[in-house]
Amino acid sequence: MSSLPSVAIIGFGAFGQLVARHLRGRASLCICDPQVRSNDLPQVDSQIAARCDVIILAVPLSALRGVLSRMADHLRPGALVIDVCSVKIQPARMMQELLPDHVDLVCSHPLFGPRSAPDGLAGHRIAWCPLRGPQHLRAVALMRRMGLRVIRSTPDSHDREMAIVQGLTHLIARGLSDLGPLPDRLTTASYRHLMQAVAMVQDDSPALLHTILSQNPHAETTRSQFLDRINGLAQG
Amino acid sequence: MSSLPSVAIIGFGAFGQLVARHLRGRASLCICDPQVRSNDLPQVDSQIAARCDVIILAVPLSALRGVLSRMADHLRPGALVIDVCSVKIQPARMMQELLPDHVDLVCSHPLFGPRSAPDGLAGHRIAWCPLRGPQHLRAVALMRRMGLRVIRSTPDSHDREMAIVQGLTHLIARGLSDLGPLPDRLTTASYRHLMQAVAMVQDDSPALLHTILSQNPHAETTRSQFLDRINGLAQG
Repeated sequence: MSSLPSVAIIGFGAFGQLVARHLRGRASLCICDPQVRSNDLPQVDSQIAARCDVIILAVPLSALRGVLSRMADHLRPGALVIDVCSVKIQPARMMQELLPDHVDLVCSHPLFGPRSAPDGLAGHRIAWCPLRGPQHLRAVALMRRMGLRVIRSTPDSHDREMAIVQGLTHLIARGLSDLGPLPDRLTTASYRHLMQAVAMVQDDSPALLHTILSQNPHAETTRSQFLDRINGLAQG
Repeated sequence: MSSLPSVAIIGFGAFGQLVARHLRGRASLCICDPQVRSNDLPQVDSQIAARCDVIILAVPLSALRGVLSRMADHLRPGALVIDVCSVKIQPARMMQELLPDHVDLVCSHPLFGPRSAPDGLAGHRIAWCPLRGPQHLRAVALMRRMGLRVIRSTPDSHDREMAIVQGLTHLIARGLSDLGPLPDRLTTASYRHLMQAVAMVQDDSPALLHTILSQNPHAETTRSQFLDRINGLAQG
C-alpha cells in the first residue's frame, strides 16, 4: 500500500494534465475523462474516482453539475473535493447543494495555465475559497511547498475581482484580435504589453470565454461601467 | 568655431529635455521655450533658433502652426526641420504648407519617452517619414549609431497604424484606470501585462491624449470598429 494520498483528476484536458504533471510522485493519481486517455495513469469511472482522498474537478463549468450528481453518493467521509473553474459563485453553490455534508469542500481558481506557467508553478497564484471542513489545509501546505502563492478569498469577492481581471482582459483581447492583423512594426512599449496580454488569451477556448463573460454575476455590471467609460472617451 | 552641427530644440518639455540629454556632445545645442528654463543650455528666441542647421520641433501639435509661422522666414537654405508629434498627417501638411522650399523636412514620431526609455535609446523605435530633401540621412546615421531602430513610414500609414497602437492603447488604459483602484491580489499573467500598459500611459498629459484620440484622421474609424466588436461580444 502506498502512503501517498489518492487523488482523482476528473477531466483530463489541458489543465487536468498540468495538475497531473505536478502531482506525480506526491500522490497516487487516477484520472477520469471519457474523451482523453492517459498513456500511463489509471483511468477509472467517476464513481470509482469518487472513492479517492482528494477529488479535483477539472471539467468545464457546463459539465460540473452532471459530474457532481454522479459522484455525490460515492464520496467517502472526510474526502476533499476541489473545483478549479474560472468563476466561483456558481460552483460553490452547486457543490454545497449537491455534495453530502460528510465531505470537505474548497473552491479554487488557479490563476495560471499551461501557457503562463510552462516552466513550473513557483510564484504563480491560486485563489482559494474554503467552503467546508479542515482538509483543505493539507493541500495549502503542499501548494506552498511547491512555490504557489495561495490567496484566500470568498466566491463573491473572487468573482467581483475576476470581472475585471479576466472579464475585461478577455473582452479587450478578443476585441483587438478580431480587428485582424495588428501592427508589429511601429509599436510602443505600452502597446507591446497589450499585445502580450492578447497573445496569452487569444487561443483560450470559446467555452472558457463564455464562462468568464457570462457565468460571473458581477461581469455584466463591470463591463457596462468600462464600456460607458470608453464610449464616453471616444466621443470626447 | 565648433565643428558640431547646431541644433535648436523648440519646446523644452519632457521630450525636448530627453532629446537634449542624448544630443549633448554630439551637437551644439540651443533651446527655445518661453515656459521652461535650462540650467546650462543657451536659450534663444525662435527666430534666432531658426538659424540652426537642424531644428527639432518638440511642441504640442496645438502650438505647431504658430511656431512654424514665426520661424518660416528665418530658416537657412539646407536646414533640416524635424517634428516629433504623435500624429503625422497634420504636421506634415503644416510643414509643407508653411515652410520655404529651401529647407529639408522630415516628420518623425519617437515611439518612446522618458518613461519607457529611462536607461537609454538602444533598441527603441522611431517612425521616420522624410518629406523633402536629403539632409535627413545624416540624422538617420546618427540615430542608428545611438542604437535607435529607425522605421521608414509615410504620414498616412503611420497614422493608420497609430490609430490602433496608440489610439486603442490609450483608450483602453484610460477606461480601465477610470474604474478606480484595480485588483492587484488575484491577478493573471495576461492581466499583469495589461496593467503594465495602463501604468505606462496613465500619466500622459491631457494634451497628448487629445492629440492621439482626436487629431489622427484614422482614429475614429478604428475606434468604432473596436467598440462595435466589444459591444457585440458583451452582448454575447
